[in-house]
Amino acid sequence: MTPPALLPSWHPGRTRDAVVAFLAAAEALPVEARVAAFDNDGTLWCEKPTYVQFDFFEDTLRRRAESNPALLERPELAAVLNLDMAAIGELGMERVALALVELFAGIEPEVFTAAARDFMARVRHRTLGVPAPGTRYQPMLELLDELRRRDFTIYLVSGGGTEFLRAVSADLYGVPPECVVGTQVRYELIRRPDGRPVLLRTGGVIGGANEGEAKVTNIQSQLGRRPILAAGNSAGDREMLEWALAGDRPGLALLLHHDDREREFAYESVSGTLKEQEPITSVADRLGWTVISMARDWSRVFPA
Amino acid sequence: MTPPALLPSWHPGRTRDAVVAFLAAAEALPVEARVAAFDNDGTLWCEKPTYVQFDFFEDTLRRRAESNPALLERPELAAVLNLDMAAIGELGMERVALALVELFAGIEPEVFTAAARDFMARVRHRTLGVPAPGTRYQPMLELLDELRRRDFTIYLVSGGGTEFLRAVSADLYGVPPECVVGTQVRYELIRRPDGRPVLLRTGGVIGGANEGEAKVTNIQSQLGRRPILAAGNSAGDREMLEWALAGDRPGLALLLHHDDREREFAYESVSGTLKEQEPITSVADRLGWTVISMARDWSRVFPA
Repeated sequence: MTPPALLPSWHPGRTRDAVVAFLAAAEALPVEARVAAFDNDGTLWCEKPTYVQFDFFEDTLRRRAESNPALLERPELAAVLNLDMAAIGELGMERVALALVELFAGIEPEVFTAAARDFMARVRHRTLGVPAPGTRYQPMLELLDELRRRDFTIYLVSGGGTEFLRAVSADLYGVPPECVVGTQVRYELIRRPDGRPVLLRTGGVIGGANEGEAKVTNIQSQLGRRPILAAGNSAGDREMLEWALAGDRPGLALLLHHDDREREFAYESVSGTLKEQEPITSVADRLGWTVISMARDWSRVFPA
Repeated sequence: MTPPALLPSWHPGRTRDAVVAFLAAAEALPVEARVAAFDNDGTLWCEKPTYVQFDFFEDTLRRRAESNPALLERPELAAVLNLDMAAIGELGMERVALALVELFAGIEPEVFTAAARDFMARVRHRTLGVPAPGTRYQPMLELLDELRRRDFTIYLVSGGGTEFLRAVSADLYGVPPECVVGTQVRYELIRRPDGRPVLLRTGGVIGGANEGEAKVTNIQSQLGRRPILAAGNSAGDREMLEWALAGDRPGLALLLHHDDREREFAYESVSGTLKEQEPITSVADRLGWTVISMARDWSRVFPA
């Protein structure tokens, strides 16, 4: 029996060739330079119709609202519980996210981690019907493995809350908590009456959402190295991908294009201001990124 | 020939027994819980008469001032170049540190890293006369090795600037950049006229000095796990040590007491407010920490 080929769920072609060529070239670099940064939602697993982390907050809110219906007087929370995406859009995702963060204010990080893991163990995808880990992209898991085999350090760089992803990153992707950066909740250290220090989540965040330029500054501030491979799927990943290509080393910028309505979803993110918009795949072509067409480049989307 | 004993540079006795017992107990814990946090200056290597990072800034300043003497019109910088510790104390270390951070405003992180490594390759300790890596504490290097042998993740949690320590942490301690947290410089992403993004250091810091409570909140925010072992040597490490002991797991809080004027230096940090002060070794006794007496517990201080 022949050993399994490199990246078996990737169809032969230009995209796979570019990835394989990058893997080969990286072996000539010092190990210190072998850093790869991956967006999570929509890049490593499915983000439609809702983010898994959104589902976690919604689930928490639903339980809390049973004993405390007054929670739903806040329009942000009512919109979430009703899955009213139009209302969420009008209120703004940032404002809604902050209201959700407040649900966990005053608890210890270990309690949050346990809640996130409990949720992950029981949630099923809204439309695909499989447990959430079943919506990871098999070709991306294969790529993570090949990178690790070549002594890469993998960073997860998410627009979602850092702590949710950290709670599940080792199980989902083999990535330890210190290699995860996302939107950061603020902590405070208080003292119990007996003097024992207790670290608590607050309802605030540090420095805004981890999107766009913030992905670059946070990778440097919190993780410390410029990636030579960056992978994303949306306008919020643009700066990170550009930065990975702008270094002295040979780099790879991977954009996952969701063009597979049959096996997953078909949608595209738009970059730019309201006045000057550009589909992210057009940005990719202009800047020399490697676009992964889910429909054409992947023989399998999800794990068996 | 018998294999080398565990921790060969630690004298037999209560301190070594406590460390050995902790190492044994940790093997029963899940790997995820095996996290150890070490302060750097004065805990892993010598911090007297001046911090190595201070020496780096002083060295940079001396070179810059040759071509730009106007720099020394700033009292903070003049005090550094004159090694005028009284003036530095009067101005306040934080204000002086900020003036030094500004020396590197506008440069790319890779340039800063290269400068830090260049300095480390040539600096000799002011009084001990050895290269800076020769002032690491041999017994602590042995402890780091034993922890790693037991699948611990090592965090470096320094009051100094993050990026200087990250530049040298792999060589000095085998710790990768993403496991280092210190005082953080702020970055900004700008665009060159050709559109290429460039990440630059600014002259500002994020969230103040990484001391005291900040060590705890930054460990959680940036690294993501509570340590079960914390080691420090000063009042700025107090909260981190208390937090390590306050978890559900068996923990170890190590305080290095500098009581060895002959082989290193003799000094002690004081905790508390100006009105209510308490030597850190007294805090340690009260809170059940393990105090390492450099004079009594270590058979060797520096690497051969």
